[in-house]
Amino acid sequence: MPDQCSDHYPVDATNKVKRRHDRGFYDNGTVHTLLDSAALAHVAYVIDERPFCTPTLFWREGTRLYWHGSSASRMLRNLSQGEPACLTVTHFDSIVLARSGFNHSADYRSVMAFGTALLVTDAMEKERALTMMVDRFFPDRTAVLRPRTGQETKATAVIVMEIEKASAKIRAKGVADDDEDYELPVYAERLPIRTMIGTPEPCPRIIPGVKRPTTLESYREGRLLAEALLEAHRLAYP
Amino acid sequence: MPDQCSDHYPVDATNKVKRRHDRGFYDNGTVHTLLDSAALAHVAYVIDERPFCTPTLFWREGTRLYWHGSSASRMLRNLSQGEPACLTVTHFDSIVLARSGFNHSADYRSVMAFGTALLVTDAMEKERALTMMVDRFFPDRTAVLRPRTGQETKATAVIVMEIEKASAKIRAKGVADDDEDYELPVYAERLPIRTMIGTPEPCPRIIPGVKRPTTLESYREGRLLAEALLEAHRLAYP
Repeated sequence: MPDQCSDHYPVDATNKVKRRHDRGFYDNGTVHTLLDSAALAHVAYVIDERPFCTPTLFWREGTRLYWHGSSASRMLRNLSQGEPACLTVTHFDSIVLARSGFNHSADYRSVMAFGTALLVTDAMEKERALTMMVDRFFPDRTAVLRPRTGQETKATAVIVMEIEKASAKIRAKGVADDDEDYELPVYAERLPIRTMIGTPEPCPRIIPGVKRPTTLESYREGRLLAEALLEAHRLAYP
Repeated sequence: MPDQCSDHYPVDATNKVKRRHDRGFYDNGTVHTLLDSAALAHVAYVIDERPFCTPTLFWREGTRLYWHGSSASRMLRNLSQGEPACLTVTHFDSIVLARSGFNHSADYRSVMAFGTALLVTDAMEKERALTMMVDRFFPDRTAVLRPRTGQETKATAVIVMEIEKASAKIRAKGVADDDEDYELPVYAERLPIRTMIGTPEPCPRIIPGVKRPTTLESYREGRLLAEALLEAHRLAYP
């Protein structure tokens, strides 16, 4: 695993943060933490020279990213031969109202990961990935579920992408006006954005006596989704 | 404006929702409401045959989408000649825990918009867009800010993309297990995800007597960000 060889992703023209290079980070710790704090990614790929940007659930294992979809989906049909892809995760932390239009901004933490997306074809590797697709979010949950059928395995395509290059970009400074603008009689603020867990809604058809498992306790109302996801990832991949 | 000619975006192989076509919508009302409820989009574009997926703030005006960045940024340098792009917005509404791994899912509402991204070069159109870049989110705010300098206008590139094709994809059904699985002693739930506004953080250097304007009242703690953004859009584009 590249994890054990290097603590940084290589930097070249593809992934170097050019605009505001002071906001760029390439170390595994920063990149991986931002990835593991998320469930939703956007994947860019190219079909017939045209770009597509598709939202998907994903997860990280070492220096690999996994995502899935129906075997029939457009993206996967095209990626099955191995296609370049860029998977991006963005944590949107605030909108910043400044004293000039130019200094209006946002706080955010994003990762762009580049590599070649491949269909997982090995049967054992696919079974393992289908288990982690659930257990990465809800550790050990697969063990208590109705077992997968062969038809379900067949109907689900799993994509894997070794991260060849990656960069994180972080802005976390709130209001940052030009020096002379602080004297202006203009209101300015940082407006925080928080992606939270709401009140869990148990399925109304749960059979009597079945309780919410204690393993789901980290997904509790009012918690930041990112915190619960990161905690689950650390339990799933100790 | 295509808005006035048709209430649907055209459907072809590019934007037709193939997987789970029951989740696909193409009418302007659905597509535009999902776009106007968001500030963050992910834009896919192609450089040297490779895909890039970049997060950005954006806004809609009629059937056009706008976003911006430094004139120096990689994306804009490449898009200035007019390049195909796909701008995607995703509202992540829940994670769904089912009784089988296969039926684990998520509720979401997403839009993929396809077109040709162009640099705004007309000076008046650029000034207008730079105003709306702030006022779309905070109606009439530009009027109370320190005026833009020529240097600032020069340093900001504005991109416009006429939406040629678009599709919305919506899943909003929570737990949906196979009929026979409802009898299993397995806990299942819909775990709602809510992107909220936190406590506004006024700049500590605001000069005495300057209060938070009443026009910002819709951005209040505990409100769904999507609601505040949609309300602001309707005020900005009545």
